Amino acid sequence: MAQTKKKAVVLLSGGLDSATVMAMVLAEGYEVHALSFRYGQRHAMELDCASEQSNAGAVEHRVVDIDLSSFGGSALTADLEVPKHDHIDELDGQIPITYVPARNTVFLSYALAWAEVLEAFDIFIGVNALDYSGYPDCRPEFIQAFETMANPATVAGVQGHKLTIHAPLIDLTKAEIIQHGLSLGVDYAKTTSCYDPTLDGRSCGHCDSCLLRLKGFKDAGIKDPRPYVED
Amino acid sequence: MAQTKKKAVVLLSGGLDSATVMAMVLAEGYEVHALSFRYGQRHAMELDCASEQSNAGAVEHRVVDIDLSSFGGSALTADLEVPKHDHIDELDGQIPITYVPARNTVFLSYALAWAEVLEAFDIFIGVNALDYSGYPDCRPEFIQAFETMANPATVAGVQGHKLTIHAPLIDLTKAEIIQHGLSLGVDYAKTTSCYDPTLDGRSCGHCDSCLLRLKGFKDAGIKDPRPYVED
Repeated sequence: MAQTKKKAVVLLSGGLDSATVMAMVLAEGYEVHALSFRYGQRHAMELDCASEQSNAGAVEHRVVDIDLSSFGGSALTADLEVPKHDHIDELDGQIPITYVPARNTVFLSYALAWAEVLEAFDIFIGVNALDYSGYPDCRPEFIQAFETMANPATVAGVQGHKLTIHAPLIDLTKAEIIQHGLSLGVDYAKTTSCYDPTLDGRSCGHCDSCLLRLKGFKDAGIKDPRPYVED
Repeated sequence: MAQTKKKAVVLLSGGLDSATVMAMVLAEGYEVHALSFRYGQRHAMELDCASEQSNAGAVEHRVVDIDLSSFGGSALTADLEVPKHDHIDELDGQIPITYVPARNTVFLSYALAWAEVLEAFDIFIGVNALDYSGYPDCRPEFIQAFETMANPATVAGVQGHKLTIHAPLIDLTKAEIIQHGLSLGVDYAKTTSCYDPTLDGRSCGHCDSCLLRLKGFKDAGIKDPRPYVED
């Protein structure tokens, strides 16, 4: 009799990090239920990439509509200019206006709801605390606090199951993430990281997210397969 | 110069509990930003009541569409029968199928997102751990754990503000809630608690929520102003 695989809910954004996480979770033998969000982001091309990534082995992929843009407060969901820089050293360590308030809290809450229904006890998120933009909800203390909250929040927790929020990239550099993903066969041409891509899908090369991604590929000694405006 | 009021985000469901909470928050002098959800609930009449309640003093009322029904798993959002009983003693202490997985986690996450944008540091929710249906996310340990998570999750927390999740009804009986609300002028005719109301707005009188409400009014020695099927 075939052994039943453990189920995992994997947050899949269409970006480089979550594509890598999904490959890691598949390699560990989980049955992957992929979850993405249409949250008023200006760079909705992410969702096409998430869909392509999910084809790499998820048993299902749900895209949930959520309405974070109605609160405003971020350049990713409101009509604010996405900041651009010539060089990564210009990132000043301040929390940038691309921060979407409480986004990862909302995303993980939906993942928790779905995990309850699926009877899955493992949720994976591709946050990364080294090469990142300084968002508070990408830090290990946030992930740990969410896990601590998830157990009393749910029937699973009350019944003595242990819900775990996994953030396997949390301590990796972008270059390490890319190298690890390539070893697992991730196709990074089918991921997008740009906050402000052109209509035909080229990355701007100057937003925080592009600068972090480009530095990662450069440090890894590999050319980013994604097209850029200045290619 | 007029003193600026402290802002609060108040979760307003249209039910008895959250209407009482809103009256308490207004009485404490907060500027109230009321938040409701259209989450695929079968008893959408709640939202009309929430709207009427918000007119009692909130500076604004947002209704956010969320998509919990796509996950299923609850009689409130899926095509499952709402359990009915003849008497409150038949509630057996098990978590009933009206439980919506991780609902309060999702609701509070949105409240947190809005609080970030508003620069509000106080969120109020009308959960109650005495006369309730045994949902895990109505217990004090959940509320405390969410607050502990909310601080590292947000810019406000990182900047040293203290976000507080208030659950002022947590230790009150339903009768005490009703008596307190009446002293603050809450119009309970404009609240609904039924999980399965008729199309013309009468409460069934037999779902868990009706039974808890009816017992509360009986214990308070007051007639519930809401119409019931068997009136």
